[in-house]
Amino acid sequence: MSVLPTHVDIRDVSLRDGLQIEDPIPLSAKLELLAAVAATGVREMEATAFVSPSKVPALADAAELAAELHNFGDIEFSALVASPNGAKRAIASGLRSIEYVVSAADGHSQANVGRTTAEATAQIPEIVAISHDSGVTVEVIIATAWDCPFDGPTPPQRVLDIVTAARDHGADRLAIADTIGTTTPRRVSALVAQVRPLIGDIPLGAHFHNTRGAGLASAYAAVEAGVTRLDASVGGLGGCPFAPGASGNIATEDLVYLLRDSEIDVDVDLEGAIAAARVAQKVVGHDLPSSLLRAGDRILGD
Amino acid sequence: MSVLPTHVDIRDVSLRDGLQIEDPIPLSAKLELLAAVAATGVREMEATAFVSPSKVPALADAAELAAELHNFGDIEFSALVASPNGAKRAIASGLRSIEYVVSAADGHSQANVGRTTAEATAQIPEIVAISHDSGVTVEVIIATAWDCPFDGPTPPQRVLDIVTAARDHGADRLAIADTIGTTTPRRVSALVAQVRPLIGDIPLGAHFHNTRGAGLASAYAAVEAGVTRLDASVGGLGGCPFAPGASGNIATEDLVYLLRDSEIDVDVDLEGAIAAARVAQKVVGHDLPSSLLRAGDRILGD
Repeated sequence: MSVLPTHVDIRDVSLRDGLQIEDPIPLSAKLELLAAVAATGVREMEATAFVSPSKVPALADAAELAAELHNFGDIEFSALVASPNGAKRAIASGLRSIEYVVSAADGHSQANVGRTTAEATAQIPEIVAISHDSGVTVEVIIATAWDCPFDGPTPPQRVLDIVTAARDHGADRLAIADTIGTTTPRRVSALVAQVRPLIGDIPLGAHFHNTRGAGLASAYAAVEAGVTRLDASVGGLGGCPFAPGASGNIATEDLVYLLRDSEIDVDVDLEGAIAAARVAQKVVGHDLPSSLLRAGDRILGD
Repeated sequence: MSVLPTHVDIRDVSLRDGLQIEDPIPLSAKLELLAAVAATGVREMEATAFVSPSKVPALADAAELAAELHNFGDIEFSALVASPNGAKRAIASGLRSIEYVVSAADGHSQANVGRTTAEATAQIPEIVAISHDSGVTVEVIIATAWDCPFDGPTPPQRVLDIVTAARDHGADRLAIADTIGTTTPRRVSALVAQVRPLIGDIPLGAHFHNTRGAGLASAYAAVEAGVTRLDASVGGLGGCPFAPGASGNIATEDLVYLLRDSEIDVDVDLEGAIAAARVAQKVVGHDLPSSLLRAGDRILGD
């Protein structure tokens, strides 16, 4: 059997990936959700994205939300950006952690940001320079790392080329993302095994959607293969508006249940995550796909 | 990375575990569902249970259903039994494959069949004799193999004792069942690793519920650890009426997607399983939790 880590960092992405496909909700509702997620004990949250308000209207209040983050203790808040200009706006708004997303497939990259993978990769040095000049951390997230809704399966070398560029240009962290929820454990293990030898001590995260039911299976395979950071959203909120068929991040509470049952320590409280998922259902106004929301924690006898 | 098998046998349990918690449906509706599942190419189906009609009214038509099975080609149909009398009824009705369930936890065993684990285990020789005298195959299924809703976590030795008894008394197959959907991959790997050295060439199956979202993750872990037979139901139908909180077998179509994507051969056609899940939704009259029912197969580019 594999050797599992003793701790996994969970980054809650409810406020960004979780909400971006939803109809816009008021800032006050976001802050209510943010408070509920913060109360779980989570150490990292993806708060918003500094991208085109016309493309992602649900996140058009990025600067207003950023101005409220100082009220939530010492959680590390991050924001997703897709360009040097977005990075500048995020930093000007007070964010200290930036995620720069590069799609490994040209089809998704064009649909998402209007640039090829090569063009988006070429902007890594500028993003890193802008961030590091301000003492801000940069994570490069590689989207459509396994499959693209337009181009089909992503050749692993396209991912590895971005990994190498990010490493060479000083990215502080890396993550691989299953943007449309199609990968499965074997392919996760295989890709992580190819990425890890390239990155030395750079922390590696992974981001899964549960679109085809294999999100938790993929997350566990990633952890077995050496990933120590996982994204999740309370209730399983989320999706990508530019990737047809994408829906639902893995649910924070389902992930916590699985990791805790695997004797892996996490900073997120299970009951708190379930409570936050209930708040998420309320603020978006519809049911969410989380399993723990329905089943609750394990029933334990004496 | 682990060595995966080239083939996994999927047994569809829609007609038994899938329907037993539902309000009874007419035999004609069951036959419509059976025909849809049979059309997937599946080689094995759990058709019904020969148990108390008052405890499981949804399966009270076991003999009537059994009388129709000859119409469905050379699929191996099995029936669950909980006593020697049930085995006799199943065999008299024409079944050629019997599943005898023994709960590893006394609490569930008492709730399910009114006997302790030791008492239920002691009936294995009689069940095997009744079956083998008629040339019928016997599988011993160990319920609450990881957790019991009444007794809490099941000590692995309680499972291993049943495994040893089943082996010594000539069971043709064994299976371990996560009756209430609480286990996770690490505990699955650990238990399978303890069971396998005891059973030689006896085929080992596993049965998971997706109650807490980890059903597919557990199924994949089981396959990695040497399980070659998995139960599933179309749409994720199912549950156990005597185990509070239990719900939903892993969905056949979600399992097929994951195994096929892992380059593991299965006999079940994915589009056929999705079509059968739609029939299952129709005959039970409510939505089912399957992911593929909503997302469909992977979107493949050129």
